Amino acid sequence: MRRVVVAGVGMTRFGKYLDRSMKDLGREAVDEALKAAGVEKTALDAAIVGNAMAGLVTGQECVRGQVVLREMGIQDIPIINTENACASSSTAFHLAWLYVASGMYDLVLALGVEKLYHEDKRRSFAAIGSAVDVEQMQQILAGMKSAEQKAKPADGAPKSEGAGQSRSMFMDFYAAAARRHMEKYGTTQLHYAKVAMKNHNNGSLNPHAQYRERYTVEEIIASPEVTFPLTRLMCSPIGDGAAAAILCSEEKARELTTKPVFVVASALGSGKDLQPGEPSVEERVAHRAYEQAGLGPRDLNVVELHDASAPAEVIGYEELGLCGEGEGGRLIEEGATEIGGRIPVNTSGGLLSKGHPVGATGVAQICEVFWQLRGEAGDRQVEGARVGLTQNGGGMVRGEAAAMAVHVLTT
Amino acid sequence: MRRVVVAGVGMTRFGKYLDRSMKDLGREAVDEALKAAGVEKTALDAAIVGNAMAGLVTGQECVRGQVVLREMGIQDIPIINTENACASSSTAFHLAWLYVASGMYDLVLALGVEKLYHEDKRRSFAAIGSAVDVEQMQQILAGMKSAEQKAKPADGAPKSEGAGQSRSMFMDFYAAAARRHMEKYGTTQLHYAKVAMKNHNNGSLNPHAQYRERYTVEEIIASPEVTFPLTRLMCSPIGDGAAAAILCSEEKARELTTKPVFVVASALGSGKDLQPGEPSVEERVAHRAYEQAGLGPRDLNVVELHDASAPAEVIGYEELGLCGEGEGGRLIEEGATEIGGRIPVNTSGGLLSKGHPVGATGVAQICEVFWQLRGEAGDRQVEGARVGLTQNGGGMVRGEAAAMAVHVLTT
Repeated sequence: MRRVVVAGVGMTRFGKYLDRSMKDLGREAVDEALKAAGVEKTALDAAIVGNAMAGLVTGQECVRGQVVLREMGIQDIPIINTENACASSSTAFHLAWLYVASGMYDLVLALGVEKLYHEDKRRSFAAIGSAVDVEQMQQILAGMKSAEQKAKPADGAPKSEGAGQSRSMFMDFYAAAARRHMEKYGTTQLHYAKVAMKNHNNGSLNPHAQYRERYTVEEIIASPEVTFPLTRLMCSPIGDGAAAAILCSEEKARELTTKPVFVVASALGSGKDLQPGEPSVEERVAHRAYEQAGLGPRDLNVVELHDASAPAEVIGYEELGLCGEGEGGRLIEEGATEIGGRIPVNTSGGLLSKGHPVGATGVAQICEVFWQLRGEAGDRQVEGARVGLTQNGGGMVRGEAAAMAVHVLTT
Repeated sequence: MRRVVVAGVGMTRFGKYLDRSMKDLGREAVDEALKAAGVEKTALDAAIVGNAMAGLVTGQECVRGQVVLREMGIQDIPIINTENACASSSTAFHLAWLYVASGMYDLVLALGVEKLYHEDKRRSFAAIGSAVDVEQMQQILAGMKSAEQKAKPADGAPKSEGAGQSRSMFMDFYAAAARRHMEKYGTTQLHYAKVAMKNHNNGSLNPHAQYRERYTVEEIIASPEVTFPLTRLMCSPIGDGAAAAILCSEEKARELTTKPVFVVASALGSGKDLQPGEPSVEERVAHRAYEQAGLGPRDLNVVELHDASAPAEVIGYEELGLCGEGEGGRLIEEGATEIGGRIPVNTSGGLLSKGHPVGATGVAQICEVFWQLRGEAGDRQVEGARVGLTQNGGGMVRGEAAAMAVHVLTT
């Protein structure tokens, strides 16, 4: 396997773009990445496109990537559509890496693009609800509905809305994990609020972030409760956007740049039925990535991790080995994961503040680490960053993430 | 890049399975492939799953492969969902090949699975209609509707049904290509009927085929007209089903079999805006596959090609170089592509008779060629087959197939 270089990246600002198409968002990200890499679109050997939910949001299934790329004149080459829920584009990045690492191609595009906002909100919720086992979810909801009907007079019963419930199910899952962490290790709601405060602070420094407001921990805790201990400002929003990366061989990179960023690990895994005491999918895939890179958590200078909710970041610190088991609360308490701290996490603002257009998130994390390692991260630059990690999870099947991707990048 | 071996394959009979889930269909195909390869499911290093339309048919997007595979205990490993319309699972097969060829993994599953039938037929049609640029299609249909309204009194105007029209649009496209071929080369409707007769004959010998009836050319021509020259028996039906293949390294294959089937070419491409005289995507990708294999059309003993309609097979003969330009009609006329002929095509019955559950079709073609090269094709065995080719196209964007995959396999 050859060494692989990220030659350039680009992304749209994440946001609510009812008037922009996937084509339009994709074009902006790809154009910026090509420009950053200094290559023409006609030089690309292949393209992998991650999108999770266009089938249910816009009705466009089957050929999403071709629809976006052909419009901008990227044609003839292999174009592959990947789907892995919130990890769709880190999966695309993994395959682009594989094409180059294998020696098959020299210059490959990885694009993540997503439109979640729709005038009919039910479409957005149905799409988000498709990141679980839909058949099983329908059975669970049918059971809940039948129990509700038994417990309440029929005309007073609240309307059961499957799709909305499957969205809140994700946050219920995070809330339950957050409460377990509180009970077991003494973590508090304040710790989770501090994660949210940090990420919103970081996002305020990032021109690509969907939300750029700063908040105090008091404001975060006082925002509407989702499910205890989660409040709205501790949960990632829905959004639209696109992010692109150009990957190339080391030889090709020598023509293009004097500041190569290497992909030294590209690890992908899926959930399993856990036996007591077994490591989680987050731990298993991180372990494989560290092995592949020949590096460990102490070597990292910057991390983008999948903070779909603030507690997920606290737990993620431990799963990635940034601190010991149960020490996640202390890590945020000490300020170690702030910009300027020992190991800055989610300098981009993370999913909480930068936003989370699901199929675009994985490559957007790569963008941030790329900019950090090149010293191009502006007001949120981590001084001397040389090694970065991204962690991106997707979907939920039988109690673990359906897909988990960890990448390690170095200068 | 290492040599890659297909160690075993399996598939369901294609058909109408309103009472079977994707999990159930997938399990049957994967179990059969594992058994044929002589490997345990726990030995798999990774899995790639092609499905085109579950988002719109069953509401399951994002994590289709995990939902199918986790249920049968395939877990922890990388699971990637690919989508490329009718070429979704040949794309999955290509990536499984890439994982093994690169040296990254030794034993990888490629699965194609699709359920197209739904009690609400509009869902099936909307799904098939998503294999084009949906935004563009809506604009075209809006234009047609507005023209219709101008031409007819409002209450007498036929109902415009977008999804149904995009399905028939594919057949209109094939019919137009068929008529051009007739005008230019003197091909006749009888030639197309003979292709359909051959493939229905072959399907009658295949226990996995959805339709196993034989027809005379008169019956085929007399079946309901779709768009001249196409009649219903010249068009592929919709269907449900699954097909699986286990790919492995040459070293691993030595432990498993004394009859290895090698993948000597795996080529993928996409459409382009053609300039006059330029080769089509079918020709371009076939050319790359032949180059990769170091073989040409004269070396082939058996071919499975994408006969979504009978004329597509006649044109496909020429695009794959089985005969010269304009000679496709003569090739079927001479019986050269029948079992026992010079170069048997679609011995499985092809899409016309075996059926076309879109995301399963690509790997199902691989199954047929595998069985032929192993001498396990029963009543439809091509004597002494040593080299086979599969051609699988998907979707339509800006006038060419959105995805095209060609594989060459040898003993």
